[in-house]
Amino acid sequence: MTLYKSILAYDGTDFRGFQRLSADRRTVQAEVESALRRLGWTESSLRAAGRTDAGVHARGQVVSFKLDWGRPAERLKQALNAALPGDIAVLAVDTAPEGFHPRFSANRRRYRYTLRLAPNRDPLRDRYGWQVWPPPDPARLDELAGRVAGRRDFGAFGRSPSGTANTVRQVFHSDWQAGPDGEREFVIEADAFLYHMVRRIVGAMVQVGRGRRSPEEFQASVEDPRRRWQGGLAPARGLCLDAVLYDGHEGIEGSC
Amino acid sequence: MTLYKSILAYDGTDFRGFQRLSADRRTVQAEVESALRRLGWTESSLRAAGRTDAGVHARGQVVSFKLDWGRPAERLKQALNAALPGDIAVLAVDTAPEGFHPRFSANRRRYRYTLRLAPNRDPLRDRYGWQVWPPPDPARLDELAGRVAGRRDFGAFGRSPSGTANTVRQVFHSDWQAGPDGEREFVIEADAFLYHMVRRIVGAMVQVGRGRRSPEEFQASVEDPRRRWQGGLAPARGLCLDAVLYDGHEGIEGSC
Repeated sequence: MTLYKSILAYDGTDFRGFQRLSADRRTVQAEVESALRRLGWTESSLRAAGRTDAGVHARGQVVSFKLDWGRPAERLKQALNAALPGDIAVLAVDTAPEGFHPRFSANRRRYRYTLRLAPNRDPLRDRYGWQVWPPPDPARLDELAGRVAGRRDFGAFGRSPSGTANTVRQVFHSDWQAGPDGEREFVIEADAFLYHMVRRIVGAMVQVGRGRRSPEEFQASVEDPRRRWQGGLAPARGLCLDAVLYDGHEGIEGSC
Repeated sequence: MTLYKSILAYDGTDFRGFQRLSADRRTVQAEVESALRRLGWTESSLRAAGRTDAGVHARGQVVSFKLDWGRPAERLKQALNAALPGDIAVLAVDTAPEGFHPRFSANRRRYRYTLRLAPNRDPLRDRYGWQVWPPPDPARLDELAGRVAGRRDFGAFGRSPSGTANTVRQVFHSDWQAGPDGEREFVIEADAFLYHMVRRIVGAMVQVGRGRRSPEEFQASVEDPRRRWQGGLAPARGLCLDAVLYDGHEGIEGSC
């Protein structure tokens, strides 16, 4: 048995999220496990860096599994891609060091959220972005993104996925970048994220950037976890798990 | 009754093409007609500039219809977009001059074909492009595209959609452009196109660019309609009807 780590990309549109649920609900985990079983995999469960929500995309999800393969990892990548449906792809497969765990070994995650600032729906773009019109003030968006960086209690923007009370997270990077065709992409990197945290922060920034809520309200929620931000959850379709980063394993990284 | 012209964009993935077929097959035409009927439209059939194949996308399809609306065209656009499914959008609606016909009044069509030159499948891009690896020689692609321009009998690359024997078409523009993320986009503009013509020309260029067929074979087919190009039809998902152009109606134009 060899321990492998792998980077996955997927279009989340037609999945009920990453995590395996009942057999009648299509999930990324169940599809990958099914493909692995066709290659002789016998473990009970795939390990993954993060559980993306229904509709959320990924280009840097990391999973690990043990397999008796015996051929080069590149051949394993090809065999997995041949066995997977078109909306999931394996971008890389490599052997992992003993003790590697995609979630517990990771020290940073990066998400990317795409806003499409245009007056019309666009069937060729809306699958991977949130159409917002009229557009939020770009200078305001930049300013708000800067306020998110740092080690803070983000309890106002989400709850802990593990069920523990700890909602302190360290945000290393938080800014808006220019995307193709006038899109604006919010890139945020942190040690870990709370449930719905990125979508709620994006939703809040858009509300403030359009003048529907005040910058002071946003600032109060950033400073005080009891000031829970109500409403304004940005749609899943704009979100993409861009990369999971490991100390000394910088190579295991994608980009949305 | 007022005559309207409208520009449509659609994601062709989940359609059996533009043209209405039997009721159990989902087509763009049937969806647009259904949306129009909810606004009081009573004609028997929508008129369109072109019948795109199953899986082919559009950002510049033009349709026309008569409707007793009585409010501004902008409101009609909003009402249509609200009635249409997410994979079809109306980009523009305007009144049309008497006698306007989206197909017979058009004097040029422009298609765009996207090649994604990368070793891996990519679920977040493959919906709108053809992944090709190893990549064809870019200089060869440029050279082949240049040979296509001009007034020629393209009978080797497709048959007439109208059933007539005339396979002469004038290609005004034919070249490869750089797309985002290293993609290569073939842009071709002609007075009209034969059935499967763009996909067959792209497939042929890729075959020659990868050394599987010779440039001389390609040239022979460009010069002689009897030298039918066999095989190598590029997949529908990479193709997009970019624009339909009308003399004096330059505004009615999209861009893939």
